[in-house]
Parts: sequence; C-alpha cells; structure tokens
Amino acid sequence: MAEVIEGIAASNGVAIAKAYKLVDPDLSFEQVTIDDVQAEEDRVTAAFSVSKTDLEVIRDKAKVNMGAEEAEVFTAHIMVLEDPELIGGIHNAIESEKINAEAALKNVTDTYIGMFEAMADDNPYMAERAADIRDVTKRVLAHLLGKKLPNPALIQDEVVIIAKDMTPSDTAQLDRKYVKGFITDLGGRTAHAAIMARTLEIPAVVGSGTATAKINEGDLVILDGLDGQAIVNPTDEQVKEYTQKGETYLAQKAEWAALKNEKTVSADGKEFMTGANIGTPKDLDGVLANGSEGIGLYRTEFLYMDSQELPTEDDQFEAYKTVLAGMDGKPVTIRTMDIGGDKYLPYMPLPEEENPFMGYRAIRISLDKQDIFRTQLRALLRASVYGNLWIMFPMIATLGEFRQARSIFNEEKEKLIADGVAVADDIKLGIMIEIPAAAMLADKFAQEVDFFSIGTNDLIAYTMAADRGNEHVAYLYQPYNPSIMRLIKNVIDAAHKYNKFVAMCGEMAGDQIAVPILMGLGLDEFSMSATSVLQTRSLMKRLSTAEMAVLAEKALDMETNDEVKALVEAEVYDK
Amino acid sequence: MAEVIEGIAASNGVAIAKAYKLVDPDLSFEQVTIDDVQAEEDRVTAAFSVSKTDLEVIRDKAKVNMGAEEAEVFTAHIMVLEDPELIGGIHNAIESEKINAEAALKNVTDTYIGMFEAMADDNPYMAERAADIRDVTKRVLAHLLGKKLPNPALIQDEVVIIAKDMTPSDTAQLDRKYVKGFITDLGGRTAHAAIMARTLEIPAVVGSGTATAKINEGDLVILDGLDGQAIVNPTDEQVKEYTQKGETYLAQKAEWAALKNEKTVSADGKEFMTGANIGTPKDLDGVLANGSEGIGLYRTEFLYMDSQELPTEDDQFEAYKTVLAGMDGKPVTIRTMDIGGDKYLPYMPLPEEENPFMGYRAIRISLDKQDIFRTQLRALLRASVYGNLWIMFPMIATLGEFRQARSIFNEEKEKLIADGVAVADDIKLGIMIEIPAAAMLADKFAQEVDFFSIGTNDLIAYTMAADRGNEHVAYLYQPYNPSIMRLIKNVIDAAHKYNKFVAMCGEMAGDQIAVPILMGLGLDEFSMSATSVLQTRSLMKRLSTAEMAVLAEKALDMETNDEVKALVEAEVYDK
Repeated sequence: MAEVIEGIAASNGVAIAKAYKLVDPDLSFEQVTIDDVQAEEDRVTAAFSVSKTDLEVIRDKAKVNMGAEEAEVFTAHIMVLEDPELIGGIHNAIESEKINAEAALKNVTDTYIGMFEAMADDNPYMAERAADIRDVTKRVLAHLLGKKLPNPALIQDEVVIIAKDMTPSDTAQLDRKYVKGFITDLGGRTAHAAIMARTLEIPAVVGSGTATAKINEGDLVILDGLDGQAIVNPTDEQVKEYTQKGETYLAQKAEWAALKNEKTVSADGKEFMTGANIGTPKDLDGVLANGSEGIGLYRTEFLYMDSQELPTEDDQFEAYKTVLAGMDGKPVTIRTMDIGGDKYLPYMPLPEEENPFMGYRAIRISLDKQDIFRTQLRALLRASVYGNLWIMFPMIATLGEFRQARSIFNEEKEKLIADGVAVADDIKLGIMIEIPAAAMLADKFAQEVDFFSIGTNDLIAYTMAADRGNEHVAYLYQPYNPSIMRLIKNVIDAAHKYNKFVAMCGEMAGDQIAVPILMGLGLDEFSMSATSVLQTRSLMKRLSTAEMAVLAEKALDMETNDEVKALVEAEVYDK
Repeated sequence: MAEVIEGIAASNGVAIAKAYKLVDPDLSFEQVTIDDVQAEEDRVTAAFSVSKTDLEVIRDKAKVNMGAEEAEVFTAHIMVLEDPELIGGIHNAIESEKINAEAALKNVTDTYIGMFEAMADDNPYMAERAADIRDVTKRVLAHLLGKKLPNPALIQDEVVIIAKDMTPSDTAQLDRKYVKGFITDLGGRTAHAAIMARTLEIPAVVGSGTATAKINEGDLVILDGLDGQAIVNPTDEQVKEYTQKGETYLAQKAEWAALKNEKTVSADGKEFMTGANIGTPKDLDGVLANGSEGIGLYRTEFLYMDSQELPTEDDQFEAYKTVLAGMDGKPVTIRTMDIGGDKYLPYMPLPEEENPFMGYRAIRISLDKQDIFRTQLRALLRASVYGNLWIMFPMIATLGEFRQARSIFNEEKEKLIADGVAVADDIKLGIMIEIPAAAMLADKFAQEVDFFSIGTNDLIAYTMAADRGNEHVAYLYQPYNPSIMRLIKNVIDAAHKYNKFVAMCGEMAGDQIAVPILMGLGLDEFSMSATSVLQTRSLMKRLSTAEMAVLAEKALDMETNDEVKALVEAEVYDK
C-alpha cells in the first residue's frame, strides 16, 4: 500500500526515483583493550586510505559541479588524512594505551579539535581547521565501524534524497544529473535548502516531519514538488499518473521559456517589471537565461560572509561592476550589507543578543560602524558608471535612519567627485520596506526616497511577531493575511501618490497566489528567484489588472489567510 | 566641580544623599599551602559566624519590608551556614590538603554546587539549593578576604544607590526609609528595576552608562528622577535648587492625592477611565490607595512563575477571587498566561529558540497545551461571580487564534454550568493588541471581541523590529513615532465603529507626552502603574478632548518621534 507523506511544496516539478537517505549512521563505539597492536594499526591505515579515495572522488565531483574554489575544502580534508603527526599520534595511542583503533582515533582527534577551537577566538581559521578534522574523523570512523556514510557527491544513480534537513554544504554537493529531488523533515519554503532547490530547478518538499522515519533506503518515491507531497512505493497506476504530471509541468516550462525576451505586460496592456534576486555575480547566468528585466535585489552580504576578513573596496567594486555591466543597462538594485539577525561574520563579532532578529543588524550596524558602510558606498559609487545602479538600505525603521544614510552617501559621493573619480549622476536611493513602522509611514518616506522595495519575508515575520525559522510558530507565516495585504497597499499607494517606484523582493513576489493580488494593488516590480521569472510573466500576461484590482479589494476586506487563498484559487485558477 | 551624569528618567522625584555603591568587590584569591591548620579553621569559624549574623539582620529587615514569605530565602541561607556536613568538609580540606581557608571553602562549595546543578534538570528545587550555596559562599569569602559585600538590606543611613543594574532580589531588599533613590548603568524605562522604583515611589535614573565609573562611594549625589540626571558633588547652590525642585514635586503629588475619589473627566467634560496594572493580589493595596477606577491588566503569569509547579485550579481561583472581590464591582481585566519570550517556568521547559520574543509564547502556548489553558479558564469562570471580570488573550495575531480561544472558553463555561457551578453571564472577552497584524485588522476583530487592550511595550517592539531589552537598538523604542500613533488610531477607530471599548495597558498609557495625544484619539481606558494614576488623572482634567483631537491630527502627520514630542511639549506643557 502506497503511503502519502505531506509536506511543504518548496520547488516545482515531479521526480520518481529510489530513495537515498542522507542520514548520518550511528557512529558510537566502545573503547576496548586490545592485544594485537599491529592489527589495529592496519585497520587505521586501511580506513585512512579508503577515506582518502572517497574524498578524492568527492573533490573531483565538486570541482565539476561547483568550480575549483568550492572544491578546495575537500583538498583540505585530504591534507588532514596525510598529516604524519596525526597518523603518528593515533599509532602511538594504540601502542601505549593498547586501545582499539576507534578509541585511538577519537581521543587523538578530540585533542586536536579542542586545541584548535581554543585558538578560534583569536584566529577564525582555527575554527575551520577544527571543523575539517571533525568531518574527516567522522568519515574514518564510519569506515572503521563498517558503516556507510552518506555522500551526496558520490551518488551514481538517479535518486530522491531523504534527509532531516539539508545544510548548505549538502546542497552544494548535489549533482542534478543524479539527484532528482529531495524531501526533508524540517525547514520551510524560505529555508536555504528550499531556495537552493529552486535555483537547481529540482523538485523539493520540505517540512514533512516524517520523511526520514517513513521512507526506507531504496524505496521507490514519487516526489511531487508542485503539491508538496511524496508517495512511497507507489502503484504502477500512480507512477503513470505522476509521470504524466511531471511531463505536463515540463511542457509548461518550455512554454514559459518562449517568453524569455518578452516584456511583462498584463492582458489589459499594463506594463510591469519582473526581476530576479541574486547573491553573487555568479548568479548572473541564471538571471540572463531566465529573461529577467532587472535585478531587484543583490544581497551583498555574501561578499562579507564568504570571506576571511572585511572585503576591500576594490573587491567590492569588482563584484558590483561585474553585475552592473553584465545587466547591460537594466536596473540593478544593490542592497547594502544586511549582517546580523541570523547572519554572522566570523571576523566581526556581534554582541550576544536574546532576539538577534530584532537587534543590531543591517543599517543599524552600518550607521554605527560607518567605516564599513563608507567603504561599501565608495565601491558602489565607483561601479555606478558601469550600469543602472539603484542603492537600497535594509531594515530602515525611521526617517532619521534614512536621512543619516543618505547624508553619508552624499558625503562619499562628493569626496570621490572632488578626487576626480567618475560617478554616475542618476543613482537612485531607496529603502527596503520590511519593518512595519516604515510601512505605516510610507507616505512620509515616499517624499524623500527614489523607490521602495518591499521585503516580505521579514515584513511578515515582524507583522505577525513570528520568527519564520521557528517551526513552533510556522503557522503564522501568512503572506495572504489581509493584515499583510493592507500594509502592502499602504506602501504602494503612498509611493504612487508621490510618483515613486515600488518593487517587492521577498518570496511573495513570485508566489502564484499573491501575484494576482499584487498586480491589482499596482506593484511596479516583482523580483524573485530567477527560475520563477518566466512562470510569473506567463501568469501576469493572462491576467487583467482591472479585474485584479477588484480581486484585491475583496482580499483586503477578508478576515483570514485561508479565505484570501481560497478567493484567488477560485477566481484565478478555477479551483 | 560638580559632574552631571545623564540617564533615562525612570521614576519621578528628587533625592539628595550620599552614594552607596552596590557593586560586588573583587573576591579573587590565591590557593596557598598553610602550616597552621588551627588558624585557618578558626578563620572559617569566624567568617561563618559573622555571615550568620549578617543574614539574621537581613532576614529580619526583609520580613518587615516584604513579609515573612519573601524573607524565607534568607532562612535557607542561614541553614546552609549551619550545615555540619559543609563545615566538616571545609575543615577536612584544610587538614588533609593543607590549603588556606578561602581555597578550602571554594573547593568544597564548588563540589556541592556542581552536584546540585547536575540534578537540577530533574528537580528544579536543586537549582535553588545551588543558588543558595553560591550566595552564601560569596558572603563568607568576602569576610575571609576582609572585603565589604554590599547589603542593601543593611543600609542604615540615607543613601542614593549606585549600581550597574538592579536584580529583583536587590530591589526586594530596599528599605524606603534609607534608600532615597538609585541610578544604574544599564536598563531602560520598562526594565524591572525601573518599574520597582515607581512602585516604591523612589526617584530613579537608569541606563546612565557611567554612574558606577564616575561616582565614588560617599560622594554627595543629587538624583533627579524627573529629568533623568545625577549631579555628583554638587555646589550648595545646586543642593538648594534641587531641594526646591523635590519639594515642588511632592507638593504636586499631594495635589494629585486629592483626586483619589474623583472620576477622570476632561476639561470639556468627557469621561475616561484610569486603571492600574498589577502582577499579584498583593498589589491591590496600591491600586486602591491610588484611586484606580479599575484594573486594566492583571498579569497572571506571576502565579505560574512564583511556583514550583503549575498552579492548581483552586490556587488560581483564590487569587482571581481576591482581586475581583477586592475591586468591589469595578472592572478587572485578567490576561491569560503570557509565558515565553523572556519569561520561563522552571518546571515547564520550552523549546530553545533563536528569537524567543517572536516564538512560542502566550496564547500560542495556551492553544497548544490546552490542559493548562482550560485549567486557567475554569478558575476564571468560577471566580467570575465575585466581581466584574474581563478576560483578555495575549499575543493574538489572527482571527483564527481568537476564535479558537473563545470556543475553548465557551466549552469550559458550558461544562461548569452543566455541573451546576455558578458562573457570571456578563464576562467580557477581549484581546491584547500588541502584534501589528492584529492592529492592521482591528476592524475585523472589533466585530467579534468585547474589547481591545493595546499593549504598547510589545506593539512598539514589533512595529520597530527592535527588542526593547537590547541596548544596541534602544534608540528605536519610539512611542511617539507617528507610525505607532497611526496604528493606535486604526485600533481605536475600528473599536468605536463597532461600539467596542478600547483600553491601553502598556507603559505609554501613563506617559505624560503620550496621554494628551491618546485622549485626542479617543482612547477609553488608560491603565498604568498604580502610582501614575493620580498624576495622569490630574493631567487629563486640565486638557480638552476637542483640543487634543486637533493635536493628535497634527501628530499623525509628523515625520519623527522627536517632532511629536516637541509638539506636545510646546502645545501642552508650554516648553
């Protein structure tokens, strides 16, 4: 009997393949006294050797999938395995203490890890060394115990991955050729793994709660990323039905692809913009391949996070220039550093906070540590001549904050001009609307900014007082709740009253239930995952803004998230 | 030259007295080898004996100031000092290890503390035992080292206390006869210490940043709780000036006292209600002494927090009955359990959360753990016949949550009626408006609830996305920001459209800058610290609602918190 597991639809498509469980095996063991020292030492040598072979394969795969730079971490792991001091230490422990290979390995590596971690406060590199040794130890120990360690990079058959959760390093190893999709126990639509799945264009279901418990290694699984469910050991009938569903989806995708070079125009002729959100210049390929009309959000914090120290002005300049030039005159909205909350920099310790999400982050840090902010603004100003630059400040709550940020921007601009540096004279300055206070006062902000961009992920979290990463309050992530829609309407109306442009760059901008209402409210730009752009453009071409305005009016007067969803399903999708 | 230290005005009044520094001395020491065992043992005996004398005095003081129950903790401390096993262990350590008394004390008590803490997960009582031993060890160690430990309960002269921060147990020991006021480095207007100062009616300045660094023990200090500053070693001229200022304030207080039995009526004849917020039935005395017209907020979580286990239905019934009967028919708004956020129960572990303030708390827990909620509702229902009961649900974000809470309430009501239990038939059901989503959708809520109570502390925090306990974003606690005022207006207008009553029970309801605007917006009830009721009533009697409506209109159209503050100062206080 086929079992159906419900979860959250996180990335579209249908996959049918065998289950591959990405779950760490039990690596516990007993320390025992041994007689045959040589035998234990031989076991260590063998386990090191096969671990090294694993890692060489993983590294080569990673090089192909992700590029040489990202594969470097595995070279570091191999170097740990080749370290004579480590191997010598383990042999020593076996000889002097007469303990088994597992215990000798663990005791010696624990000492190293402890040592490196103790130094990590002064030198963040040491924390990475500790993590490397911890990873390698897990691998060697698994081989010693004859346990199979899951290696997503080593997958050679078509599979659907079943995991509790997927870490960034797990998703980085996925090879689209073999990994047809994944389902996790934890996470939501906006979690890292879900976003990665949409980038890789593989179906995914998250937050199922029970996938790892209910699915066994090798079970045949239908993964339906369109409706957020998995069917375990399906009937032939079901396999046929879902194969058809997958093909229909792919055909639709092909249809969307035909819209790549078209504008986003509604059925009644109103022009909108559909843009993409990016994290690094590498994402440009996807942006261009999906026909985005601009970049609605370039999250610059990755420049800071993927680094061992503060990125220099020149490093930043190069990144911004690449993106601006790559977009060839199309608008590029670059958000200044949004660190804090759940994003930390190893080299810049932030205060311990009870509620970091409501703490010292984003523009609050930039206005406090002005050196960092001024460096970023100078890099942006220098890059501005290579394209169409819009600069956006995150987490603005008060007009005072915006005015201070603008005046720092103007100071740096004047300094550069005085130094004879070329700077564009049409840079636009705007703010994220992601704090309810700014949404409530949008009419005042609209008189001073060039544009707004509504960041719905955070706006919803603050408006509902619910951390979107917290599973205990996941039910309060309600993008269609009329309270949210009313705040958004307030922002759009205020912007248009003063002839200002208003974009949205949260998950909601590509949400097929929300888009019809947002069209009706008059949102100007919809910026989303690049892979959702064409689907959204296709939807918007079918819809009339006049009709959507009527729909939006109804939604604003409803009482609950579910009612609004049902309204759109009934009126737009005939469900 | 007198130095002026600026801080946050936390409790009104002026005090002039010598500084008493409530700062722990350095209790570090070296472990050394000793020859004269007897001498070390005698030192221990002496230190124990004088510590016991200290604690007996503190206990007796505490009994007078706070009552027998609260003084029990010091009896527990004395019992630690009398424990023969502990004393024996210390003597043993001195004899066998030949170490000094300080080291022997520390080693032995550390062992006990470790032991008790290891058991604390299963038995919360053990955590208290560990805390007791830690406190007592500090005291004995201070005597051994000849260091003076600050004992607020032992103060025998008039002083102004200077502290980094004040813990609840520090404030509980304060004797108003001697402690004339305090100034702290940390904290804000809504911190525990600030609230306690207002309850004790002593002037206080908090969040000064530098008080402990700049003020020396014994310095003469003028503490100005009206304007939030301290003057260190003032001139005679200044002492004269501030003595006058203090007397003027006291005269004004006397004038307020005359309003105790009067209604709260504006200059143009509109009636309002001024109520008080309470935490336990013991607060009733203050409520009645200050002529409150009702209780706008009874925070029931103290019933849960001041207990070793969940309070029984009968325990709760007794507390609610006492308050309802004590108010003699005046309205009493009782808020159901608001646990979570920064409030924990030792016997009910909550999930670890990244941002507990936006997590599993208040009604979210009640709707999930319905046994606890139903017990509380039954206790409330049974108590309802003793007075005028209004029940309020905290942290309501969606209509679905309110409807679920209401239906659970109705179920319990019907069960009690079926069992023949007497229940009032006019209990009012309302919600806290403290989440922006509820404020935005107030017109929908107003059609289903009996009343609103605006909780401004949390509403401001969520609306500004700033944790009010976090000093790094303290500048964002902006009660007068037009964004906040607009949300409040939305709530009041929605309530009145459907003839519903709207109260406010946050700090803002007693804030002398906010009150004129709130009158203008038409707020029905202002509920605050009991000690602010008469001052607020006095203010409201002087003001015309028609004029305040014009003032409120202006405030709603302003741009910043500071502008609104300046407006009220100019138009209401002629500053």
